[in-house]
Amino acid sequence: MNYILLDKINSPDDLKKLEITELLQLAQEIREYILDVTSQNPGHVGANLGVVELTIAIHYVFNLPYDKVIWDVGHQCYTHKILSGRKEAFKMLRKKGGISGFPDPQESEYDAFIAGHSSTSISAGLGFAISDKLNNVNNRNIIVVIGDGSMTAGQAYEALINVGCHKPNILIILNDNRMSISPNKSAFSEYLFDIATSKTYNKVKNDVWRLLGRFEIAQKFVQNIDNAIKSIVLRHSNIFEALGIRYFGPIDGHNIISLISALNDLKDINGPKLLHVLTQKGKGYKAAEEKQDIFHAPGRFNRQTGDLIKEDDTDKPQNFQYVFGKTLVELAHMYNNIVAITPAMTIGSSLEEFAQKFPNRFFDVGIAEQHAVTFAAALAKNGLKPFCVIYSTFMQRAYDQFIHDVALQKLPVILCIDRAGLVGNDGVTHQGAFDISFFNCVPNTVIAAPKDEIELRNLMYSALFYNVPIIIRYPRESGIHVNWNKPFEKIESFKAEVIEEGENIAIIFAGNLYSEIKNLNEELLPKNIKIGIYNFRFIKPIDEELLHLICNKYRVIITLENNSIIGGLGSIVADFIATNNYNVRLVKLGIPDRFIKHSSVNEQYEECGLDKRSIKDTVLKVVSRYKFN
Amino acid sequence: MNYILLDKINSPDDLKKLEITELLQLAQEIREYILDVTSQNPGHVGANLGVVELTIAIHYVFNLPYDKVIWDVGHQCYTHKILSGRKEAFKMLRKKGGISGFPDPQESEYDAFIAGHSSTSISAGLGFAISDKLNNVNNRNIIVVIGDGSMTAGQAYEALINVGCHKPNILIILNDNRMSISPNKSAFSEYLFDIATSKTYNKVKNDVWRLLGRFEIAQKFVQNIDNAIKSIVLRHSNIFEALGIRYFGPIDGHNIISLISALNDLKDINGPKLLHVLTQKGKGYKAAEEKQDIFHAPGRFNRQTGDLIKEDDTDKPQNFQYVFGKTLVELAHMYNNIVAITPAMTIGSSLEEFAQKFPNRFFDVGIAEQHAVTFAAALAKNGLKPFCVIYSTFMQRAYDQFIHDVALQKLPVILCIDRAGLVGNDGVTHQGAFDISFFNCVPNTVIAAPKDEIELRNLMYSALFYNVPIIIRYPRESGIHVNWNKPFEKIESFKAEVIEEGENIAIIFAGNLYSEIKNLNEELLPKNIKIGIYNFRFIKPIDEELLHLICNKYRVIITLENNSIIGGLGSIVADFIATNNYNVRLVKLGIPDRFIKHSSVNEQYEECGLDKRSIKDTVLKVVSRYKFN
Repeated sequence: MNYILLDKINSPDDLKKLEITELLQLAQEIREYILDVTSQNPGHVGANLGVVELTIAIHYVFNLPYDKVIWDVGHQCYTHKILSGRKEAFKMLRKKGGISGFPDPQESEYDAFIAGHSSTSISAGLGFAISDKLNNVNNRNIIVVIGDGSMTAGQAYEALINVGCHKPNILIILNDNRMSISPNKSAFSEYLFDIATSKTYNKVKNDVWRLLGRFEIAQKFVQNIDNAIKSIVLRHSNIFEALGIRYFGPIDGHNIISLISALNDLKDINGPKLLHVLTQKGKGYKAAEEKQDIFHAPGRFNRQTGDLIKEDDTDKPQNFQYVFGKTLVELAHMYNNIVAITPAMTIGSSLEEFAQKFPNRFFDVGIAEQHAVTFAAALAKNGLKPFCVIYSTFMQRAYDQFIHDVALQKLPVILCIDRAGLVGNDGVTHQGAFDISFFNCVPNTVIAAPKDEIELRNLMYSALFYNVPIIIRYPRESGIHVNWNKPFEKIESFKAEVIEEGENIAIIFAGNLYSEIKNLNEELLPKNIKIGIYNFRFIKPIDEELLHLICNKYRVIITLENNSIIGGLGSIVADFIATNNYNVRLVKLGIPDRFIKHSSVNEQYEECGLDKRSIKDTVLKVVSRYKFN
Repeated sequence: MNYILLDKINSPDDLKKLEITELLQLAQEIREYILDVTSQNPGHVGANLGVVELTIAIHYVFNLPYDKVIWDVGHQCYTHKILSGRKEAFKMLRKKGGISGFPDPQESEYDAFIAGHSSTSISAGLGFAISDKLNNVNNRNIIVVIGDGSMTAGQAYEALINVGCHKPNILIILNDNRMSISPNKSAFSEYLFDIATSKTYNKVKNDVWRLLGRFEIAQKFVQNIDNAIKSIVLRHSNIFEALGIRYFGPIDGHNIISLISALNDLKDINGPKLLHVLTQKGKGYKAAEEKQDIFHAPGRFNRQTGDLIKEDDTDKPQNFQYVFGKTLVELAHMYNNIVAITPAMTIGSSLEEFAQKFPNRFFDVGIAEQHAVTFAAALAKNGLKPFCVIYSTFMQRAYDQFIHDVALQKLPVILCIDRAGLVGNDGVTHQGAFDISFFNCVPNTVIAAPKDEIELRNLMYSALFYNVPIIIRYPRESGIHVNWNKPFEKIESFKAEVIEEGENIAIIFAGNLYSEIKNLNEELLPKNIKIGIYNFRFIKPIDEELLHLICNKYRVIITLENNSIIGGLGSIVADFIATNNYNVRLVKLGIPDRFIKHSSVNEQYEECGLDKRSIKDTVLKVVSRYKFN
């Protein structure tokens, strides 16, 4: 389509030149633009369609980047990026060298704070407000936009309590689309709905407010009235008011005129306040409105019909998630003490079928990783077999709970670490780069990483019998088998696997990067090189018996893993070599000690030297350096 | 005194033989017993004096260990331990081989779940209730006792939301002493006070309830009345009711008769319910009632007068905490952009003086480590110099926030990790054993550990100029200098320090275990041994230049650190040796790969081979093995 108004907008200043009445058309154009781009170049669709009007209103009323807006969760920032000088760059969303799908202060001064994981925004906003106070800055607006899903994680609540204590000037906009990533029947979302529909108090309050306008004297008058109403109608209308945060709303998040009016009103009110805005995920695009789950992050889709564009994957391997979900269902049929727990990632972790078939044994706890892990531990303590599925990056939120509630108590929770390793376009805040490193120091813990989706199945099965706390980590990647559905086999605890014996050089690997080396010896054949290949699917405890054999046999060991080069398999092998004083050279391949930005997974593998060709090059360099042929 | 009733109690069954009227005397006897023991053998005093009646009532009404009670925070479990077969063992509280100061399922079947860190109890209780449902157990009571301080941490809220969703049979007892560890003017505690004093609704409700008794039909009738009252008086009386948890109270937590009566009533009510109990920290002991802060964990005290027993420490070094607190005040006078943040550990971290002198620059955020770290990051982003002080063990709660909000954004937060390493009597849940290991994989991060309190001062000072995310870790230990108050010196970034050159053997250490080796060469002199001693105060980035020199010069390297042997300094050195292919033998000294139980710090050092004598033995073994003399 023609972007008549959007074409003119290259900064928030341009936006402010538009008449309010033109903003409706602008919203429509931005919506179209987001759909044009994301239908071809996948991203988060539903949430972004839901906040077009809200974002325009914020940019129209406030003075960015001087005023600070923090988006929570950050993936709802597309309109914000488009309006703040990144309209063209938006076409390269989440691509190598392009802009991030999340706010990134290193990308633009309009992005006030990082916001990859949910529920940090109120803490950050309070920090901004307190800094301004200490720096004697009096005229800056601090605005936090937080989704109702993000409100279920504990940190949001910790921060609300502190906001109530310090009473800073801060505006919290609660973007309530009644939906975290999955439609989560949460008590909190019911609560918000109740607040939203509890008209009497809010209506009286807002009407009075609107009538009196924005004059200072009127404000004080209103505050008195407000207090009076409060003490008459009810003591604390809701949790926000109870904590000392003035509550306004709910208002329609798609009515741009009333949004602007409300924001203008609230701009001049001192102290902490919360504006409850009701939005619809996927707004304005039929397919996205109807299939909110799927259109959270739909991949490529047909712009006209809304149909998802499926790659032709007949005869192609499924991804690890698919096999995980199918396998868990299969196991749950066999063992009725299996339960599944996810922190709001039912679809991402392929748990829909399990949820449907075993509703009583399925627990989507909302965005609440800490709770998820302790809850799983308690279930394990009482004889159940919990598969607790958490993305590697989000597991960073529940580290303490794993240490105490699972490992210290030796409870047989099967902690499935999804999206371990490099994750592709979500980028820097979502890499699963650290889990081996941070789990390895925890006593009583088994860490496993399957080389492929069949081994994933067998590990899930075998874990039922190990009866120990176990981490099973697997990537957001395709497997390598078309026929993955083989009978279960028990994997002996905790033995590594010899894949090929070789000479001079051994590759010790764990996890899915096996895909990059499975044909390596074939390729090296012409050069008369044969290397040893060893699958250390158990990273902790490490198979020391086999390690001794390898250290005695080979002159160079290359370790390979989809984890940080610090503290992972490579470091464990280094530790073994140094403390046993083996005279063997070590080359570690893994994710380097820096944050890896968005691009495709394959591009990230190349960037880190973890793809097929780079690994081969590494081998050839070793061969030539040590003159092995 | 004579324990006339207590002497008869060796299990909850014995307790149940007492008349209700005798319980008042029993409470008094238990209080005396706790004081008798803890005045000589330090522990948590105030909180335990506050829950004597509540604990008796719980044991009297419920059927432990079949019914499950989860204590949160666990250090309020002394009466529980005394009543459940550990009366004699209580005399060895927190001592080597004695019982733990926290619930420990491995110690007794009466301890249903680990509870060293706060705010996990509702998650665990929900797990218990759901397991029972899936296991078809219908008659078990699940009771959670949670302090108002624990209610400020996010996980409690995550779990409440889930309880509201599943509506299990669970009784949450909110032990409200209006006090977390420090008297924390928290918005949430104000809120609880408001609830507690908001009589109308609760009074009506409870009166009706009491009148009708416990018959089933009456219950349904009451529930109807209750709903009617609710819809008339107010929509949601408080956050608990709002989330679907029935609220009862407040009641006097020291009135044992009414406690028993309330618990008997509540026992038969289905669904989730919360009983709000008001208690006084330190109840029944004047000194503890008056100085609640100090009597949280007072150390030894005079049983009669309540005066603390101070060791004669004239001419003895102060501990690291003391020097930290004094130094921070000194720096804050010099640099007015310094701010301090603590999650409810003002006294433990020696921040009282800072709080008093710089109230506007001091932030006690309550038990909320996640919030603390993001908040600190935002302050740093706006030009302030936040010293965020968190115990090593509690930092496990804010790992993700450090990775994203601090490290990824490269914000110069000075993260002071207090109680790093072995902590002594608090034991297994409070060891600071893992922080080097879990921070080392995080990019952009500097990790430092001072060898003594003077180096701590200089690191705190120098960190102001490094302008990077930095961890400074230090132990709960005495320093080694009487005159620590030397002028500040800048430490060159990020250089190690050569303490002594030697032959054949080098010790590479980081942190306070320097105290165990500072006279080592003197002791080895008669044996004609001189070892090299190197202070790697910067663990990341490691001083590679010096490491190369050491690896070239020595034949054996011993690493020494107050951190897990996995992933700490020893592993970093191993990595360096193996990847550089040095032919040097490595011996790693550190905390072994298991959880270390309570005992004194020195006993723990001995247990781990980290005390003076063990280290000397290690050196002598190396000497004899490799025939270095």
